[in-house]
Amino acid sequence: MSKLRVESFTVSLDGFGAGPDQDLNHPLGVGGTSLHGWAFATQTIQQQLMGSDSGETGIDNDFAARGFHNVGAWILGRNMFGPVRGPWPDESWRGWWGENPVYHVPVFVLTNHARAPLVMDGGTTFHFVTEGITTALGRAREAAGGKDVRLGGGVNIIQQYLRQRLIDEMHIAIAPVLLGSGERLFQGINLPALGYACTKHEASPRATHVVISRL
Amino acid sequence: MSKLRVESFTVSLDGFGAGPDQDLNHPLGVGGTSLHGWAFATQTIQQQLMGSDSGETGIDNDFAARGFHNVGAWILGRNMFGPVRGPWPDESWRGWWGENPVYHVPVFVLTNHARAPLVMDGGTTFHFVTEGITTALGRAREAAGGKDVRLGGGVNIIQQYLRQRLIDEMHIAIAPVLLGSGERLFQGINLPALGYACTKHEASPRATHVVISRL
Repeated sequence: MSKLRVESFTVSLDGFGAGPDQDLNHPLGVGGTSLHGWAFATQTIQQQLMGSDSGETGIDNDFAARGFHNVGAWILGRNMFGPVRGPWPDESWRGWWGENPVYHVPVFVLTNHARAPLVMDGGTTFHFVTEGITTALGRAREAAGGKDVRLGGGVNIIQQYLRQRLIDEMHIAIAPVLLGSGERLFQGINLPALGYACTKHEASPRATHVVISRL
Repeated sequence: MSKLRVESFTVSLDGFGAGPDQDLNHPLGVGGTSLHGWAFATQTIQQQLMGSDSGETGIDNDFAARGFHNVGAWILGRNMFGPVRGPWPDESWRGWWGENPVYHVPVFVLTNHARAPLVMDGGTTFHFVTEGITTALGRAREAAGGKDVRLGGGVNIIQQYLRQRLIDEMHIAIAPVLLGSGERLFQGINLPALGYACTKHEASPRATHVVISRL
């Protein structure tokens, strides 16, 4: 069966997966951008996000690249899709990524507020799912057509899927920065009790990469 | 002035500095020993703890070795000294380390229960301090005679010193293991707000080493 995977999700040394006070100017929360220095330096992210041919190869790039391998659909929490809270006031918010988003596959956005699907350029369609994480996973698996489903986050959504043991593996990057506050990825989560273990560990000068797998 | 330093303090990927349920058979809490694989493999720890000539050199050993450099006194929380809780029933508990402990300098043990100093072989004397962290630091600095004071832990004591901004630098090792529960080193601590930043970052296959310094 296709896997549910978290990839390139980065936490600070003090365990935060995003800074506090996300808004239009701070998509990753205040200070959150500093987490992703390792990723922005890679050839993979330079190509995928910036359309640039620059960027580094090596361990960081290998991990960034695996995040795009065999992915047939994505699941995002609503806050990863945008800064709008509560009922959608109109259709104007179309994601952080412009008219041709980086996904190029169906993306299922978990929200409490229904909205018609958004068909974007380049193969990305945003589907808004109000029936919860299990329904979103079922729809994403179907849309992925045998490929894996990548769970983008944020912290709250990852925790919900972890508590149900629905995540097959997580690549977590630990960045050498301190955030001080925000959302802690593993707060209140007992990973060994849920049957997870660290199965891979590699580090670069920019980040430590681990893979946490369901046994 | 001499520094107050935390050295070789190891946390799990999920942020715990010790496992739960410390007792006589589990000095580091259940599962806590797995944190210290990187240290036990080093030449420094093999020499200091085991009196052995084996052990590895390299990044891990460099960090283990710096923990013993220029240290004139130690401070320990009582739970690092032993598993006895509440008033001392008698004088029989003399630490985890036998008659010739690894310290070879004065060690100040923070406790709520007074006890006469314990003079051990090899230069280690355990002093029991009931007047709190500031007094313990003052006495340790005096005893250190210009050298630094090393703060051994545990988590609770490190947090107390951090909140008072009394720690100059901390070498923290992150081990690729999951503990699931126990004491989280940075729970409730906002390091950037306290004026701390990550100033060094190096990784080996066994652990990621960071230094967090007061700016």
